[in-house]
Amino acid sequence: MTDWLRVTYRVRASSDHIEGRARSIALEQSVEMGIDAVTDPWVLEHVVGRVEEITEEADHSYGVVIGLSAITVGGNSAQLLSMLFGNVSLQGDIDLVDVELPSSILDGFGGPNHGISGLRRLTAAPERPLTCSALKPQGAPTAALAELCRQLAGAGIDIVKDDHGLADQDTSPFDERVKACQGAVLSSGTGALYAPSIVGTPRQVAQRLEVVAGEGVRVVLIAPMVYGLPAFGELTMDHPDIAFLAHPAFAGTGRIAPALLFGKLFRLYGADSVIYPNYGGRFAYTPTECTAIARGARGSWHTFRPALPVPAGGMSVERVGEIVEFYGPDVMLLISGDLLASPNVARQAERFVQAVKS
Amino acid sequence: MTDWLRVTYRVRASSDHIEGRARSIALEQSVEMGIDAVTDPWVLEHVVGRVEEITEEADHSYGVVIGLSAITVGGNSAQLLSMLFGNVSLQGDIDLVDVELPSSILDGFGGPNHGISGLRRLTAAPERPLTCSALKPQGAPTAALAELCRQLAGAGIDIVKDDHGLADQDTSPFDERVKACQGAVLSSGTGALYAPSIVGTPRQVAQRLEVVAGEGVRVVLIAPMVYGLPAFGELTMDHPDIAFLAHPAFAGTGRIAPALLFGKLFRLYGADSVIYPNYGGRFAYTPTECTAIARGARGSWHTFRPALPVPAGGMSVERVGEIVEFYGPDVMLLISGDLLASPNVARQAERFVQAVKS
Repeated sequence: MTDWLRVTYRVRASSDHIEGRARSIALEQSVEMGIDAVTDPWVLEHVVGRVEEITEEADHSYGVVIGLSAITVGGNSAQLLSMLFGNVSLQGDIDLVDVELPSSILDGFGGPNHGISGLRRLTAAPERPLTCSALKPQGAPTAALAELCRQLAGAGIDIVKDDHGLADQDTSPFDERVKACQGAVLSSGTGALYAPSIVGTPRQVAQRLEVVAGEGVRVVLIAPMVYGLPAFGELTMDHPDIAFLAHPAFAGTGRIAPALLFGKLFRLYGADSVIYPNYGGRFAYTPTECTAIARGARGSWHTFRPALPVPAGGMSVERVGEIVEFYGPDVMLLISGDLLASPNVARQAERFVQAVKS
Repeated sequence: MTDWLRVTYRVRASSDHIEGRARSIALEQSVEMGIDAVTDPWVLEHVVGRVEEITEEADHSYGVVIGLSAITVGGNSAQLLSMLFGNVSLQGDIDLVDVELPSSILDGFGGPNHGISGLRRLTAAPERPLTCSALKPQGAPTAALAELCRQLAGAGIDIVKDDHGLADQDTSPFDERVKACQGAVLSSGTGALYAPSIVGTPRQVAQRLEVVAGEGVRVVLIAPMVYGLPAFGELTMDHPDIAFLAHPAFAGTGRIAPALLFGKLFRLYGADSVIYPNYGGRFAYTPTECTAIARGARGSWHTFRPALPVPAGGMSVERVGEIVEFYGPDVMLLISGDLLASPNVARQAERFVQAVKS
C-alpha cells in the first residue's frame, strides 16, 4: 500500500484557473512532466501527485491540498524538502502552509533529543518558564563577553547564549570564547548554562562540537536555514547529548508558513527549542502566528518530544507577565536588548528572573 | 584598515520612516542591539553596520545600501549568509537585492572549479551553446530511465541529467541508476555526459560521490538551497574533479533577488552551472531578471571562473533560436518536457541538438 503526504499550499489564483493550477502543482511537485507523457500505469497510480482538496479562503486565495507519494521521498530528509517545496517555491503565487506526514516518513526522523523535559532537567527548573539572554555585541572581545556572561548567569538566567552574530571572528575566537564563557557560568554557581553559537560548514561545525564537548557545554545555538535542514538533522542525530537551540536567521527567504517551518519542520529535524520573533516586537508576526508556532512545537506529534518555544525580538522585562500568560509555563523567554540597554545589566537581569518566577 | 561589504536591500517604507528603518537594518544585521548600549568605541567604529545610501525607486520602495564590516564575517561561509540576510529576512518589508564583497572575503571562496570553459572541455563543444535534458519521471524503474538516457545521449544531447526528483528511492536506487545510466552514455559513443542527482545529508552525499567517482561520472546535479549553501561550498571545494550543476529547488522567490541568488551566490559557493526558470515558461521570471542572472553567472568577478547559465522550465525545441539569440552562445539549454511529450523522443531530441548546432 502506498502512503501519501498531505501537503497544503495557499495559492493565489482566480476561480476559473484554480483547478488547473492545482493539477499543475501536483505534477510539478512529483513527476515534473505532462501527465500525457507518463505511460507507466504503476507510476500513474503510485507516484503522480494528486489534488486532494481545494478550499476557497476568506481572502480569495485557495487552500490546495496535494497528495504526494511517500515513495518519492524514499526516506531521505533532503528529498523531503524538495518534494514539499521544490520547483513550486519558484512560482510567485504559492506558499507552503502545512504538511501531514505518514508514519513511514516520520519514523525516519528522531525529532528533539531532549525537548522541553530535557531542557527542564538541564536547567533544574521542572515547572516554571525558562529564561534566556544573549551575549552581544559581535566585535566585542572575549573578556567583555565573558564578563557579561558572568553577570547574566549570576542573576539566575537559565541559558546564556551567544548572539547568533558571534561565530569564530578574530575579535572573539570560538575556542577562546567557549572556554571563558563556560568558565563564567560554572563559577556563577547558579546552574546557568552557556550556549555557544555554532556557525560554519559541516566540517567546521563538527570541529566546534568537539570543542564544546571538551568544555562540558550541553547546549548550542545554530541557525538551521543557514546551515541547511538536512545537515542540521544529521547533526542532531549524531549528537544526542547536546541540546540544540534553533535560531531563525535566513529563514524568511522562502515562503513557508512560520508555524510549519519553526513549529514543525525545525522540530522534525531535531531542534530542542525554537527561537522565533514574538508578536509585538520589532518583527511582524501576529499573536495568531505565534500561537500556531507554539502549538506546532509543543503539540502531540508521532513519537517526537515537544520542543520548547522561545519567543524573542524586542521583548522587555515589563512584558514578562503578559507573555507568560499568553504562552503558559512551557516557554523560554529570550530577552537581551532590554537588559543590555539598562545602566545596570545585572540588576535588570535579576528583575527578569524574578518576573518569570513570580 | 577595516573592509566593508556593501549590501543592497529593497525596503518598502514611507518617506518619513525610511531613514530610521535603514538605521535599524544596519543595527539588526550587525550588533543586533540599540546603538546607545554599544559602549566600546572600537566596535562602534569597526563593527556596527552603516547606512551608506538611500535611493527612492520608481515604485516608491527604497534601495538601501548598508555597509557591513568584514570583521563580522570572519572568513566563514555560513556566517556570510547570516550577515547578509539573517534577522531581517524575517521582516516582511525588505528584500535582499545585491552584494559587493571585498577581496578579503572573496579570497575565502574558490568559485566554480570548472565553469564554462571546463564544461566546454568536458563536452568537447568549444563554441556552441550546450544541450541538456532530464531523466523522468520519478518512480520509473532504472531500466526505463537508462533506456531514456540511451536515447537522449544517442541523439547527441551534451548532458543528460537526472530529474531533481530522483534521489535514492526504492524504484531506482542511486547506485544501480548511476551504473546503468553511465553505461548508457558511454555506450552511445557520442561523448554525452550523465549527471546524477545527489540528494541527502552531508554524509549521504559524500557516499554518493564515492559511487560517482567509481563509475567515472564527471558531472552531478544538486540543489544548494535544499542541501545548504555552506555545505555546498565545502562540497565543491572537496571535489574539484566534479562539475556541479546547481538546481534551484527550495530557493523560493522574491526575498532574495534571483540575479543575486542564482547568478552570484550559487557561483560564489562553487556552482559550475546554474539552472533557473527561463522567461516565457511556466515560471514567472522576466527577460530582465533572466539577463541579470546570466550576467551574474558569466560576468567578470574576482578570480572566479564564469558559471554557465542554464535556462529551463517549459521550454520547447521551437524556441531554441530565440533563446540562443537572447543569451548568446555561452549557455546550456535544458529541455525535457517537450522531448518526453513527443511520440518519438529520440527524434525530437535530435531536432533539439540540430536546432542548437545550426
